[in-house]
Order: sequence, then structure tokens, then C-alpha cells
Amino acid sequence: MYLKEVVCDSCGFLCDPGTPVTACPDCGSPLKLRYDFDRMEREVKKDELSGTGISRYRDLIPLDEPPISLGEGGTPVVLSSSISKDLSGELYLKLEFVNPTGSFKDRGTVITVSKAREWGIEVVADDSSGNAGASLAGYSARAGLDCTIYVPASASGGKIVQVKSYGAELKEVPGPRERATEKIVEDTAGTNTYYASHNLSPYFSEGIKTLAYEISEGFEWNPPEHVVVPVGGGALLVGIHSGFQDLARLGWIDRIPRLHGIQAEACDPVVRAYENSWDRTRPTESGPTIAEGVHISNPDRGKEILEAIRATGGVALSVSESQVKRSIQELARKEGLFVEPTSAVPLAGLKQLSDQGVIESGERVVVPVTGSGLKDIEDWKGF
Amino acid sequence: MYLKEVVCDSCGFLCDPGTPVTACPDCGSPLKLRYDFDRMEREVKKDELSGTGISRYRDLIPLDEPPISLGEGGTPVVLSSSISKDLSGELYLKLEFVNPTGSFKDRGTVITVSKAREWGIEVVADDSSGNAGASLAGYSARAGLDCTIYVPASASGGKIVQVKSYGAELKEVPGPRERATEKIVEDTAGTNTYYASHNLSPYFSEGIKTLAYEISEGFEWNPPEHVVVPVGGGALLVGIHSGFQDLARLGWIDRIPRLHGIQAEACDPVVRAYENSWDRTRPTESGPTIAEGVHISNPDRGKEILEAIRATGGVALSVSESQVKRSIQELARKEGLFVEPTSAVPLAGLKQLSDQGVIESGERVVVPVTGSGLKDIEDWKGF
Repeated sequence: MYLKEVVCDSCGFLCDPGTPVTACPDCGSPLKLRYDFDRMEREVKKDELSGTGISRYRDLIPLDEPPISLGEGGTPVVLSSSISKDLSGELYLKLEFVNPTGSFKDRGTVITVSKAREWGIEVVADDSSGNAGASLAGYSARAGLDCTIYVPASASGGKIVQVKSYGAELKEVPGPRERATEKIVEDTAGTNTYYASHNLSPYFSEGIKTLAYEISEGFEWNPPEHVVVPVGGGALLVGIHSGFQDLARLGWIDRIPRLHGIQAEACDPVVRAYENSWDRTRPTESGPTIAEGVHISNPDRGKEILEAIRATGGVALSVSESQVKRSIQELARKEGLFVEPTSAVPLAGLKQLSDQGVIESGERVVVPVTGSGLKDIEDWKGF
Repeated sequence: MYLKEVVCDSCGFLCDPGTPVTACPDCGSPLKLRYDFDRMEREVKKDELSGTGISRYRDLIPLDEPPISLGEGGTPVVLSSSISKDLSGELYLKLEFVNPTGSFKDRGTVITVSKAREWGIEVVADDSSGNAGASLAGYSARAGLDCTIYVPASASGGKIVQVKSYGAELKEVPGPRERATEKIVEDTAGTNTYYASHNLSPYFSEGIKTLAYEISEGFEWNPPEHVVVPVGGGALLVGIHSGFQDLARLGWIDRIPRLHGIQAEACDPVVRAYENSWDRTRPTESGPTIAEGVHISNPDRGKEILEAIRATGGVALSVSESQVKRSIQELARKEGLFVEPTSAVPLAGLKQLSDQGVIESGERVVVPVTGSGLKDIEDWKGF
């Protein structure tokens, strides 16, 4: 393992990789992992990669032991046959919904759970009414960890059934979504329960990095010009950025793709900050959206998200509910991909990116298709 | 392409690969595909395979053009951590539910639909209230084919929603399941609609063969001693058998695994025929089972199923509803795999196989885990 230390860029906190952490214990900011890149550069060679899934990149991830795997990663890429017609470029869809619990979150969870086991943790918890909760419950079952998922009392649907099926405990918290976060922080403080927050844990976003590795290797280390993702809590966009940064630092790629973040108009704190040149997001009034995965009104990683978009020359933009619905239908009826609404958000933004000249003729665009439509059957009954 | 001709073993019917066929047009039996194995053996080398998913085996499948793919195949294998404790051997789970529409059927459908396009077909139909219907609807959307799925009027659940989401037409047929089959045969006879029957089409089972190829290659061409599968219509078991036969004929493997077929006690025509040494299945009275994928009381491929089991030294046995339920729960709670009831059927049979001494100490067992639990959320609400 090449992980050296865990640091807080905000306050300077520092600890070794053997210490269980979620956010910075001193200031609450997201932590970062620092690797020994000099040694990694000498010892790890891209033409010596072997194996499948995330284990293919075992030297680039922060684990001592083989991951407690459910076969995540190594997802297929298909060329768009229909949606790409609106684009000047070539559109590649990376099918993240075929991960073992049905979403891209498995890439982050496998690292979080494997690390928890390395630390000797026996009990984990997260607040999520969505894919992250189902993913943590699944990997905890595999790892033999006790797992509790905190959800708003109003939560329903396939993901909740999935969480319970894995044998996780479901804790329903009355009030708005934020109350579930407050409650889990209160409940886990000073206990032996590890708060395996997908929004905050640096280990979670480290798992997401493997998506950037696979995209790069899939294009023979000449990555696409653009990657377009839905933005909610930001682990996806920040994780991908971090992965491309690793590869650039190792000299495996010459250039980092432009990373574009797409939000729903009903809840678009990142877009507002981007347009107003703020360096971090501010709490935003939000309305309802069918894209529940991006319904986060003040993401913990707001600053990192904006940095990633700006550093790569990306843009942030928002899409209407009707655009999202159109894209969901087009994905299913034209591309044969049955996805949950959040997955359609970046695709709904593509036409704007093309019309604005951000995506130019002949350029290659990759969109991770994040979650399975089977998770939200109820949403589909209205179509 | 190495496909030479399409033949009926029962009546001697023969046609070339350019002719659209489902079952034998003369006698109604399932058809078989004949390849030029001599040329294949000279030209195709196992150490020159390249690419991912089913395209890796493009020289062994019956297509002229690249498949119209949704990224099927190339599914992960995980070692069982819990269920294997009941076994003397090593248990490997091949996660077929991570295929793009959520089940192993995608391997068959990609060939059926790609072949239909090669033939110039524009309209396809199948009778299925389950995974095969959802799969055909998805691939038809991708291929730009009009698709109609015939279902019993009583059908419900996630799979029906999925079929409609892909834009396929749903035709509800009053009466028992068999009426949907009779109706589709009546409706498509003499029309330009191709009856893309997953139970009958030889192209469908040819796609399933890729599962045997992947299993063999995954074990470096030294395949496991046992493969245990759920048996309903038989395309899975017959397809896998045919795939291993190909590899043995090519000299890529020295031995074909023992293929065991597991059914639900409520509907076990294959087990009855096996136990009574009949050479084909007979229509069986059947009761209700939660494993709807194996609820077929007189499979079209009954004879082939029995031949495959007997030829490989396999056994057929049935499991109770309570055993299936226990296995579903164990898969989710101990292995972290959220699957539909049919997927748990072979796992429910493992203990019997072990207790009977069929599986011996140190032997390797592969079980394809066929369908996603997200397809049948309603089933889970009772757990």
C-alpha cells in the first residue's frame, strides 16, 4: 500500500492510515489521503496491471489487504446510438448501474468497508435514503459487519427494501433529510460505531477514483475530452477528478478531461456558486425533483466540487424536470438502458453543453450511468 | 462466422443460417446450430482471445456482424463466504444478475436480436412474464426493433414496468400462462413478426453458451467439477452444456463439469423424469412457487435437459419453498447478494448435493446467480 497519511487541508490535522476517521475530527472538513507517489511511480507500471474490477488497480487504492469484494467495477461501456445525435461529439455511456448493488456507490463502499475491517471495526452506520445505504448494507453483509442505515421517516421504495434484505437495521428519523444526518452524528459520537459516511469519508471517494482509471485505460490512456456527471453530494465528481489527477501525476495520462457537473434546477447549489464565482456552495432553497440522488441543498464537498470543475475547465449547469424525464425515456426507449432518474440528469445536460459550444465536433464524451431503474419502479409507473 | 447450417435432430429439417427460424417449422422441435468445427479448430486459438463480454468469443457465436450490445457478459465471480460452509467443496458464485437488464437472459437475447437484425427483421415478439421479456424489450429498444411481449393478464411487478419502460408493447392474455404462448403462436404465424422465443430459439441458447466459455476461461481452461443451475425452460442448462461441448471439441478443455439441475418441489417435471429414467419430461401438475423463473410444467427442451444432466453425470433434484426462502435470505444477509427467488433455487439444492456425496471434498462448484432482487421487490416485503 502506498498510502502515507490522512490530512485536513483546512486546519492541518494529520493522522496515519491506521486511524479510523470520517471527516476531520478537529474542524469537520472532508479529509484527503496522501500517497507516496514517488515510490508508486517507480514501482507501479500501467502495462503490468492485471486482474479485473477494482482489484486491477490494487496498488492505487488505500488498502493493505485484498478488498472485500462483490465484483464491483470493470463495468461495460457502450457507444450511444441515439442521444449522441444531439451532439457534435461521440458519446460513451459507462454502465455503472450494473455494479453488484445496482449503483456506482459500490466502488466507494468496497473501500470504506474493507478499510473498516482492516481497522477492526465491527459496527458501521450511514445516513442515506438511496443507493449509498443499499450499498453499505450489502457490503456490510458480505464483510460480517453490523450495519445501521438512518433514513428520513418519509423514505420508501426499492432501496429501503434492499437495505432491509441485507439484514441491516433501518432507523427512521422524523423530520427533513438533514435530521437523519444530525441524528447519526449524535448517536455514533463516542461509540464503537464507525460513521461510514459516503458524503464525507475520504475512503469512499478513493473508491470512486477507479472510475477515472477504468475510463482512462478503456481509451488506452488517452482519456476523453469530457466527462459529464450528476452532482449531489459530490463524491462522484470529486472522486473522478482525484483519479485523473493520480494518473496525470504518475505520467500515465497527459491530460485531464473537462469535468462537467449537472444538477436539477430544483436544487442547484453548485450551479449557483459556479455562476456567481463563489468559492464554495451556500445553502440553497430547494424544490422537489424526481432525481433524488442530486437533491442535496448544501453539499459537504461544495468547495472541492467547484475546484474540480474549474480546474479542469468544466462547467456546471442545471436541467429542468421535463428535460430529465425526456432523457430517462430516451435512455430506455432508444438506448435500451433502464435507469433511475438521477442517472438521466447528465444526459439531459448534454444538449446545452453542445449548443453552448462546450462540446465540439469530434470530441469524445463519457457519461457514467449511475443507478438502475429497478431501484425506483414507482417512478416509472407514471410514464 | 463458423455457423454452417441449422438442423432438426428430430425430423431432419435443415436450413441455412440466413433463414429466420424459431422452432423446427416441420415438427416444432427445438433446432440446433452446426458449426464448421474443423475450420474453427484451425483458425481460432484460446490464447488469442481479446475484448470483453461476449465479444471476446465472437468467433464461437453465430453472428456475421458485431453484436448489438448493451455490455452483457464478463460478469464477476465471487467466492462464497457463508453458504460454502455447508459444503465440502469450494463455492464460486457467478453474478449473472449484473447483466444490463438484470439477468442472465441478456446473453441469449443479444444473439437473438442481433441475428434478427442481420435477417432484416423489424418486429419481434416473445411470451414471458419475467426476465426474458424485459431483456428482449431492452435489446429491441437498442436495436430499433418493434417489440411486443405477451404476458398472462395476471402478471405484475417490476419486470412488467421494465418491459413498458423500454417502449415495448405489452399484450395481456387472459387465462393461464400457456394461453400467452398459444396466442403469440397464432398471432405471429404468417406475419412479418419474428417469434423470438427464449424457450425455443436456438440462437437464444447459443448466447447462453458464453457462460460456459467464461467459467472455463476464468478457471484457466480447467473448469470446475460441478455447475449447479435452476431449471425452468432449460435454456440455461442446455446452453451451458452446449458451450462446454464446444470447448471440449476444440480441445480447449479436457473435461465437462457435472451439470446439476435444481427445481422447486412445486413444479419439478425434470426431477420426476430423471428419477423415473424417462427420456423426456411429461406434463406435470404444479403448485405455486415463489421461484417463478422455474415454474414451467412441461419444458420444450425437456429431452435436451435430461440428456445434458445424464451425459455429464449430473443429478436433478428439487427443493422446498422453505429451503428457497432460507437461501434467499442467506445470500442477502451473509453473502451481500440481493437476488430474486429463482436465483436461490440452486443454492438451496447444494446441501443435498453435498449430503448425498455428489459434491466431494476439495471440488469446485460454480453457481450462476441468475436475476436481480430488485426485479421482485414485492416478494421481499414479506421477509
